[in-house]
This record gives sequence, C-alpha cells and structure tokens, in this order.
Amino acid sequence: MKSISNAVLIGAGNVAWNLGIALQKVGIRFVGVCNRSKDHGEPLAQQLQAPFFEDIRQVPANADIYLLALSDSAIESVSEQLPENEGIVVHHSGSMSIDSLAKKHKRHGVFYCLQTFKKEAPIDFSQLPIMLQATSDSDLELLKNLALQLSPNVRETSDLERSNLHVAAVFACNFSNYLYAVAYQFAKDNNMDFNLLVPLIQKTAMQISGDSDPFLKQTGPAARCDMAVIEKHLGMLQNDPKKQALYRYLTECILNHYKN
Amino acid sequence: MKSISNAVLIGAGNVAWNLGIALQKVGIRFVGVCNRSKDHGEPLAQQLQAPFFEDIRQVPANADIYLLALSDSAIESVSEQLPENEGIVVHHSGSMSIDSLAKKHKRHGVFYCLQTFKKEAPIDFSQLPIMLQATSDSDLELLKNLALQLSPNVRETSDLERSNLHVAAVFACNFSNYLYAVAYQFAKDNNMDFNLLVPLIQKTAMQISGDSDPFLKQTGPAARCDMAVIEKHLGMLQNDPKKQALYRYLTECILNHYKN
Repeated sequence: MKSISNAVLIGAGNVAWNLGIALQKVGIRFVGVCNRSKDHGEPLAQQLQAPFFEDIRQVPANADIYLLALSDSAIESVSEQLPENEGIVVHHSGSMSIDSLAKKHKRHGVFYCLQTFKKEAPIDFSQLPIMLQATSDSDLELLKNLALQLSPNVRETSDLERSNLHVAAVFACNFSNYLYAVAYQFAKDNNMDFNLLVPLIQKTAMQISGDSDPFLKQTGPAARCDMAVIEKHLGMLQNDPKKQALYRYLTECILNHYKN
Repeated sequence: MKSISNAVLIGAGNVAWNLGIALQKVGIRFVGVCNRSKDHGEPLAQQLQAPFFEDIRQVPANADIYLLALSDSAIESVSEQLPENEGIVVHHSGSMSIDSLAKKHKRHGVFYCLQTFKKEAPIDFSQLPIMLQATSDSDLELLKNLALQLSPNVRETSDLERSNLHVAAVFACNFSNYLYAVAYQFAKDNNMDFNLLVPLIQKTAMQISGDSDPFLKQTGPAARCDMAVIEKHLGMLQNDPKKQALYRYLTECILNHYKN
C-alpha cells in the first residue's frame, strides 16, 4: 500500500493554515491549494509552495488526499464540486458526519484535530489528539500513518464519538475562554492588571487530568457555599447586569451541583 | 526595622497548609499553630515543627506575625479572640476588608495570595501574585519583605482592588473549572476519554496573557455564529436539561457579545 505523500488543500482559514504548515513540515507535498477567495488562498499556496486554484474544477485529480478545511456548512456542497479523483477526500470537522462526503467520492473520511486553531499562531501538533474515520481499512491505515507523523495521539472514532467530543470541547474550552474574556473585560473596566490573573488561570487548567473529576478541585465562594461573598460580588456587579446575571447563573449551577 | 522571622498560624485548611509550608521553606519559624479542631490542626503543627494550640488564648504573644488563614466568616470573630500581641495580624482573604481586623489589633494587614489552594497539592509560589495591605508604612515594608521571599510578584492593593481581582478570579478560574467538570461529566456519561480534551484545555489557558483580549482567541460554533452546529449540540444534550440550559445560556452570551 502506497503511503500518502502529496495533497490538495481546499480552504484557507485557520484549520487550513495550521494543517497545511504542519503537514508540509513532515514532508507532504502540496500539489494544489484551492480557495474561492484569491486574496486569502494565494498567500497559503505560496507558503506551501503549491499552485493556487481559484476554480475547484481545475485541481489535479491524482493527489493522494484532498483536505477539505472548510466551515461545516460548506463541506457537502464543495465536496460535490470537487472533481472525481484518485485520492481520499477528508474533512476536519468535529460535527459533520463522514457521510457528508459520500455522495460523490467513494474514498472519503474524517481527519479531525481536536484543537483550537488561529492562522496567526501555528500550533504544536505533537500532543494533539487526532480522530480518524474512513470507509475502508486500507484508507484508515493510510490516514493513520499520515496522522502519526503529526502526533502519537491518534485514534479511530465514530461520528457520534467525535460529536460528543466536540460538545465536551465547547464546554471545556470555548466557554472557558469566554469566561477569560469576561474577566479581562471586568479587569479593564476596573483599571485592574489582568496579568495578575494569568498564573491562576494557567494553574487551574494545568491541574486538569483525565484521571480525576475536576469538581474535586473546585474552589471559590460557590464551592464553599459562602453566601456572604456571593452577595458581595453580585453587589459589585450591579452596574453590569450581564456579568451579574452570568455570575448568578454559574453560581447557581455550582451550588446545585453540591445539592445533587 | 526587624524583619519577620517567626509566626503563629491560625487555621488548618487549604490556605494554612500551603502558606505554612511555603513560609517554612524560606526559613520562617512557626512558634504556634492553632486550630479549633485538633484532628486537623495537629498534623499541620507537626509538619511545621510548631507547638499546637487548641485554645487561641494560649498562643504566644511575642510572634512577629499572626496569620489568620480562616474562612471569611470566621476572620472577625477569631481575630477578636486572639490575645493582644506584639506582631502584625493579617488575613488572607480576597473579599474581606482590612478593617475586619481593626477592632482589637492596632497592627493589622492583608496578605492575599491569588491562587487556588488544595491541602493535598502544595503549590509553587514563585510566580504567584501576592497582594498586601497594612496600616503603617513600616508594617507594609515588613510584609513586602516577607512576601518577596515567596514571589517577585508582590504589590500593595486597596480593599476595592483586591475585591475586584477576586470577582475576576471567580469568572476566570472558579467558573472555568466548573466547565471542565461539566465536560468531564459529559465525557463520562458518554464513555468518552476525557484525556482527549486535556491538551485543548491547557492550550486554551496557556495562550492567555494580560496583553490581549481573550475574546480575540474565541473559537467554536458560537464564535462562528454557526447555528446549525449549535442546534445539533442542543439536540444532543436534550436528555440532560441542565447541561442543555448551560450550553444555551453561554452560547447566547457569546452571540450577544458579537452583536454589541
């Protein structure tokens, strides 16, 4: 079985940039970068030393893999515009079924990297979990060999497992990042140095492991059922009703957790 | 001016254990550990090679500092039971005013370490912000010299600044830890390996700095206004109404953030 050595990358967003650069580093040759906007696509094609295609119908049909690094809503329709080809067509979405690629491309799969990507800040793939799906054992093997070049943390997951993981990631990461942003805003509004909070934020996250319930590490006024402090904090937030409501909501959640 | 070289520690909870051990390491001699419960207090006294006192009226009156590592609600009343003495009486609370110690002890102050403490897991003080208050410049200087032995990150803050910081810490740390716990529970309920999420949780926290708004790093379905994924996730949570309501609430917060 021939391994994956060259690729076509479709898309030029956060995932496309990060995945493209990471795969280039492990020796994958990009034989095409395609994006509907030239302004966004060409710089990535240059970075990957690949020809740029504005029209998806022009991409080479003989690549080993077609990486559809697209928003969820675009995956199905773009995959149908992609010409029939000799490679495996994969998407990188946490939520979309593998079947969203099934209509036109017999060899298709999922290559989902569980991480938060920003174009401006290329990330280290070396500890990153990569979740794979394919329609045949041989394609799964090919994807696995590719993924293992990026990270040792590779596994096969079903649509449902991947979706569940995505939901959990929204709670643990997207929502906690939002809370960092709320704290940042509060600090700014009160002329406070947000840097003071950074060690505590990082400690709180670094002490998390899969082996124990994070709730065992819960501290703070709600965890102590310290109603006096809670009332004081709500009072301090009275000029900022949205933050006050958020504080109240999450405090109730924590108090309820203990009641149950 | 004589520096602080010995201390009495009152309390035997998470803060007392961590602060006691950290101060012992930098050479502070404990001349007494006092706690209303012998079972909890004696092991700490042993650890700190200090005599144990069950009755606060018996603690030596000639220590340089009296550390009231107590819950907020106990600080005022316990400080009034503490005999008059030659040292500085301090508390370690994020929320209580320095004045809560004023009634009996002329020399009093605040020694607030912004961190989440668990007895079982002694923490590294070396990067930890320490916020100080005192009633005289000379006592502030004494506290500063003591704090600087633990961390270079020491500053004087007012009651209001300290309270604000505490509110921000509740958002950024207590609430985000709660979200880790929700994700953990969800993972467990769905036979998912929570370890898969750990790299993403840690990356999300480690990329935070005081120099840029964390909202600029916001990713996920709500940040993309991806209503299809949001609806899908809410559907997946329909058998768990509390998590569904929490997902909906925080998603609305993020969507609203973009509208404003």
